[in-house]
Amino acid sequence: MNFDFTYENPTTIHFGKNAMNNLEIELSKYGDNILLAYGRNSIKKIGLYDQIITICKKLNKNVYELSGIMPNPTYEKVQEGSKLVVENKVDLILAVGGGSVIDCAKAISVSAYCEGDAWTKYWLQFEPVNNKIVPVGSVLTMVGTGSEMNGGSVITNEQMKLKIGRVYPFNVNPKFSILNPEYTYSVSKYQMVSGIFDMMSHLMEAYFAGNDDSVSNYIIEGILRSVIVNARKAVENQEDYEARSNLMWSASLAMNPIVGLSKAQDWEVHMIEHQLGAYTDCAHGMGLAAISLPYYRYIYKYGLDKFVRFAKVVWGIEEKDKTKEEIALAGIDELERFTKECGIITSLKDLGATQEMLPLIAESTIVLNGGYKELTKEEILNILKEAY
Amino acid sequence: MNFDFTYENPTTIHFGKNAMNNLEIELSKYGDNILLAYGRNSIKKIGLYDQIITICKKLNKNVYELSGIMPNPTYEKVQEGSKLVVENKVDLILAVGGGSVIDCAKAISVSAYCEGDAWTKYWLQFEPVNNKIVPVGSVLTMVGTGSEMNGGSVITNEQMKLKIGRVYPFNVNPKFSILNPEYTYSVSKYQMVSGIFDMMSHLMEAYFAGNDDSVSNYIIEGILRSVIVNARKAVENQEDYEARSNLMWSASLAMNPIVGLSKAQDWEVHMIEHQLGAYTDCAHGMGLAAISLPYYRYIYKYGLDKFVRFAKVVWGIEEKDKTKEEIALAGIDELERFTKECGIITSLKDLGATQEMLPLIAESTIVLNGGYKELTKEEILNILKEAY
Repeated sequence: MNFDFTYENPTTIHFGKNAMNNLEIELSKYGDNILLAYGRNSIKKIGLYDQIITICKKLNKNVYELSGIMPNPTYEKVQEGSKLVVENKVDLILAVGGGSVIDCAKAISVSAYCEGDAWTKYWLQFEPVNNKIVPVGSVLTMVGTGSEMNGGSVITNEQMKLKIGRVYPFNVNPKFSILNPEYTYSVSKYQMVSGIFDMMSHLMEAYFAGNDDSVSNYIIEGILRSVIVNARKAVENQEDYEARSNLMWSASLAMNPIVGLSKAQDWEVHMIEHQLGAYTDCAHGMGLAAISLPYYRYIYKYGLDKFVRFAKVVWGIEEKDKTKEEIALAGIDELERFTKECGIITSLKDLGATQEMLPLIAESTIVLNGGYKELTKEEILNILKEAY
Repeated sequence: MNFDFTYENPTTIHFGKNAMNNLEIELSKYGDNILLAYGRNSIKKIGLYDQIITICKKLNKNVYELSGIMPNPTYEKVQEGSKLVVENKVDLILAVGGGSVIDCAKAISVSAYCEGDAWTKYWLQFEPVNNKIVPVGSVLTMVGTGSEMNGGSVITNEQMKLKIGRVYPFNVNPKFSILNPEYTYSVSKYQMVSGIFDMMSHLMEAYFAGNDDSVSNYIIEGILRSVIVNARKAVENQEDYEARSNLMWSASLAMNPIVGLSKAQDWEVHMIEHQLGAYTDCAHGMGLAAISLPYYRYIYKYGLDKFVRFAKVVWGIEEKDKTKEEIALAGIDELERFTKECGIITSLKDLGATQEMLPLIAESTIVLNGGYKELTKEEILNILKEAY
């Protein structure tokens, strides 16, 4: 507990098989005009779209639609949504989907009434939000980002080849989020395991920084242990309700940001992945996994005791006659074995990167200094080459 | 993750050495009339009283006072506060102290505008709160109950010899709580270790129930491990900032109630202690410790695997050639050793109980059925005798 902090989280979570029963009462708190934001057809396939439209009709809501939100949502899409919000005096943006859809909804929420170019103001210059914010609610169908219970929003500017994330103040959080683990059954195994690594990365990037003995470290270790157990069960049987529900709630907690309060944090892996994503459009969690392994093998010696602790507590590595270095590396080996077991892709080549892209990704990556080692661009390039 | 749940927590936490800097902006959100609620003289001794009065004067607030709130706050005190609230049209109750003061403030918050007798309506009959609620804010000086970040309130009716706790809906939570670990330095070691066992009991009572493998179990184990480490440091040096801050934040998390969501919970230890408290007025955490040891030694066999897990994960008991029973009991032995190490009193006799009280306490205890074993009154009496 090194730093002072202020924590609040105004998101109401409705969790479980009957969580959708709360949508009607939540919607009735807002005005008549709803923007329904979603991705492609999956919410229609699983019947969610019809269910929501029925509730909206019952409440005499006017429903406008923003469909086709893509996995790495673009600023162009944000502009399209902002236009719809202003034209139709939208009272609530209802995001139905995964983190990308919710991230896009939050970006629209802050951008719609922004004077001037929102990208410049809010993403490039990180200015405080001083215009009207349109409330967002969410129905979650894909697990990993934690966007359902925080103010984070990651948007890609395709023209500038930049993928930039920002955590907005608490009033940008979804007002409510509906989490029914059964809605996540239809997501492909590829996307499921990508989301699993995403939540693990959120936990590890908060963990691998600083020398504090904050309670946050202990909580992170606990959630990681649970994620590992439940990921294995979910890979075995994607319809294991207990496993999917534990993973769903773990993802919300991991990026809440209640678990990492008052401690140093890293987030360099996310920075590198954002630029990887801007160039390749790869699944976010897969990109994180590919970068994490060589990254941790490179930086572990700068935070040796923490990597030893990780190996022992999270992976159960026994000391026996090992050196600290050997214990630390054995922990990272276990992490790698786990990714393989889950079918997580950890080669940048297989994720669509070309060798020519690597220097461009390295050069455009934001360098942070919260972790155990502040990287040079050359070190980032080496890590990318290791991950290739 | 067995049960559906709705979670929200509207409390804003300002944490750290400079947390008090946020009081001015928080107070400015409310009307002019403030009821300052506190205990005896300790907040004057550490200068907190003067600091708060200065801020209130600067904001031109009218400050009314309710002082002398006792460790187990009485319904009589609640009535006294309610009268002050109504007479002075109080806009905010500012509770400065430990859990008892905040509990009392929340009870006043729901009782002031209650038609009819609030005790009967809200404590005996558990009716939903449908009258005006007066907002509460808090400045915490004693750690343990978690009252600063939840809707819980435990009140003693002295005439009826009943101590009853209730968790009110989210809108009864403090709107804001100021947590500066340094304010807790002046609390006696006796009260400090009592608070430590209180938070441990909150964690254990959520843990020792059900056979689920919910992520909540893993989080609880993590927080318990941290509490044990930091309690030892704080007992050694009461002004160890990191230890006191970890304990302070752990207590808020333990009873938030974010850590026990979606799982079976027990709470029988709290039920027995409430009646012990109604008869003896003992320190709450001490009473919990005294009851917990014989209680867990009696019920462990009904939830054997969980007690084995507790022994291994929380206390690091190794399997070697032990039976499950031996491992489980070794974990409880470690818990007992820890209480002794901290100077926690675990004899009811030493806590002011007489043998004549034991049957009366047993008879008036509320019996719950969420734990591993639903107790009979006779079994409760046996546990009390063991604890004597």
